[in-house]
Amino acid sequence: MAVAEVATRKPLPFDAGKLDRLMDEAGIDVLIATSKHNVQYLLGGYKFFFFESMDAIGTSRYLPALVYRRGKPEQAAYIGCAMENFEKELDRFWPSALSLGDTGSKAAMQQAVAHIKKLGGVRRVAVEAPFLPADGEAVLRQGLSNVDIVDAVVPLERLRLTKTPEEIEYLREASERVVASMMVAFKACAPGKTKAEIVETLRREEVNRGLVFDYCLITAGTSLNRAPSEQKLNAGDIMSIDSGGNYKGYIGDLCRMGMLGTPDAELEDLLGFVEDVQQATRRLVKPGTKGGDIIELGERMVHESAHAKYTHYMAHGMGLVSHEAPRLMNIPRLSYEAYDAGKPLEPGMVLSIETTMGHPKRGFVKLEDTVLVTEKGYEALGDGGRGYTRAGA
Amino acid sequence: MAVAEVATRKPLPFDAGKLDRLMDEAGIDVLIATSKHNVQYLLGGYKFFFFESMDAIGTSRYLPALVYRRGKPEQAAYIGCAMENFEKELDRFWPSALSLGDTGSKAAMQQAVAHIKKLGGVRRVAVEAPFLPADGEAVLRQGLSNVDIVDAVVPLERLRLTKTPEEIEYLREASERVVASMMVAFKACAPGKTKAEIVETLRREEVNRGLVFDYCLITAGTSLNRAPSEQKLNAGDIMSIDSGGNYKGYIGDLCRMGMLGTPDAELEDLLGFVEDVQQATRRLVKPGTKGGDIIELGERMVHESAHAKYTHYMAHGMGLVSHEAPRLMNIPRLSYEAYDAGKPLEPGMVLSIETTMGHPKRGFVKLEDTVLVTEKGYEALGDGGRGYTRAGA
Repeated sequence: MAVAEVATRKPLPFDAGKLDRLMDEAGIDVLIATSKHNVQYLLGGYKFFFFESMDAIGTSRYLPALVYRRGKPEQAAYIGCAMENFEKELDRFWPSALSLGDTGSKAAMQQAVAHIKKLGGVRRVAVEAPFLPADGEAVLRQGLSNVDIVDAVVPLERLRLTKTPEEIEYLREASERVVASMMVAFKACAPGKTKAEIVETLRREEVNRGLVFDYCLITAGTSLNRAPSEQKLNAGDIMSIDSGGNYKGYIGDLCRMGMLGTPDAELEDLLGFVEDVQQATRRLVKPGTKGGDIIELGERMVHESAHAKYTHYMAHGMGLVSHEAPRLMNIPRLSYEAYDAGKPLEPGMVLSIETTMGHPKRGFVKLEDTVLVTEKGYEALGDGGRGYTRAGA
Repeated sequence: MAVAEVATRKPLPFDAGKLDRLMDEAGIDVLIATSKHNVQYLLGGYKFFFFESMDAIGTSRYLPALVYRRGKPEQAAYIGCAMENFEKELDRFWPSALSLGDTGSKAAMQQAVAHIKKLGGVRRVAVEAPFLPADGEAVLRQGLSNVDIVDAVVPLERLRLTKTPEEIEYLREASERVVASMMVAFKACAPGKTKAEIVETLRREEVNRGLVFDYCLITAGTSLNRAPSEQKLNAGDIMSIDSGGNYKGYIGDLCRMGMLGTPDAELEDLLGFVEDVQQATRRLVKPGTKGGDIIELGERMVHESAHAKYTHYMAHGMGLVSHEAPRLMNIPRLSYEAYDAGKPLEPGMVLSIETTMGHPKRGFVKLEDTVLVTEKGYEALGDGGRGYTRAGA
């Protein structure tokens, strides 16, 4: 299907000036977004509902693509699938060129090649290599043989670095609803129930609050194993629930503690220490603080404590992706580097702050919070339920 | 992290003899599965819970990989991420080699290269190009420079062609629960409610029945637009709900009709025609029938009817993927070819059969059914609710 022109162009739903600057710095002429999160971002929240959870179809997959030329949003194209004509009828797209025809990773990149060739004068095209299938990339390289192919992941992550008021509202809703769901799940705990059953309770609570459930890590008793399983709960168990659920794509990711019974003094002390680290480090959060200073304080508090051997501090940006910019520390196993550690925090950044204790005798104790950088300091989103929530209460 | 050997090997959860034959026919020495559905299939239903709905993390993504050498399951490796050590502790993997270290598409393929190099004598490696990120494939091509890289998608689809009793049970559960959810959603319809509200009702009903909600196409009144939207329902509207929800990864995908009021004679006739096509074609379903004969009958009935201009018949295999083998007809826009049209149906195949009418004056009328090929004929899964389900009833 040919790329069709539509008559009017709408206002852009993102900061095009910033994207143009980022592309200019990286020498990018045209950017092709193919990850669901970046396509959603560039289309102002649009995500095609049919493939929200699935990808595979036939012997290929759905691959949406947003083609953006630096400084020329009027030359942008969106490449989707035939069913997205329903969304076109509802006027949901801003790009003036739409290609809503075949489905498949090769077909999508054939459309991208055709569009880019029509533009002319394009020398460097940036792609999201982890989100561009190999067969799609081959189509691109073959069709654009005189063009350099470079990275789009980092510029797009920088574009999403500070959140708009709307994005903040979605993150607030996600965080509050995840914590509210956890409170119900903890209260549903009882001896003899399994971890898997509690996760299913949590999943339904999140969905019934309008979220999409992403995952739940869960521990019970002295075990440090965080996978949902047939492990049965016992009287006296401490529990942790660390869950992600998203609202309109924006992830609420928090960890709270529960208890089947009454925590003893040592358990209160352990959670108290975790809470101290969480509170001390969030108090540093304000515009101008260097991101790395937060990590330094958190790591020092852990290191200087009696819990150093089995406790870990971490902070990272979050939004449409569970670990994104600002990147405040190196997390090599997640391909996540401390790019922003030396830079000042800015209003609109959103941090996930987590203190994780895998106590060798008493079990898993953790708090994870979502902290927004405001004009004057910080605001914690979904900040309730910080003690041991009692089962059956 | 090096690939670690574990002491014992478990029975394989799939038909290894069949996979070996398919690999042999295609001249494949080693196969690398990287799609969630094929990794799940080869690991006997295992899907890492944390990344069930998400992919992105840091500046890369989660990419599970199952490396299988033809005829030598003892040389298989599973490559996951660090959190999957929790699943290893729970003894959930059959491959004797596990690499549960770094997360990312490049990191995963570095582990695959290291494993394949250790095996020695490998000349042809098959990959799932639509599900292998470009940067991961680059690692593979660089690390295995003397190896041919060929297609794994088709052999893996052939492996999944007939379903096991367990898979059939999951498909039955998924189908029944989707239809039960639809009945509730139709009954919740009322003038003034929006299509988006009804979809949210359906989503919660599916999740509260233990399914993962995949999507919902919905129409109301005379509109043929199937996207969830703010369109309000009116008294007298006919409605269609076409939804996918999965149980343990297996998709229930059905379409049923609803009505705000009482259908008139023409509406009953239209649905009656759709039902006639559905029933006539499913009656052909039994072992030995050529798949293409079903399509031929469905298309002929439509063609010879007064509704030919706005009605379409389709049948396709389904399971972990919403359009998979047996492939009974060409659907070019879905990269789906009639590979199986000339071959006899076999017990354990599962077909989705759909008759779709976009009536220019009366609206959208459709039934979609899931039909299992049994030893003697067929069984329709989730077969209730075939008339117009009345709102508010």
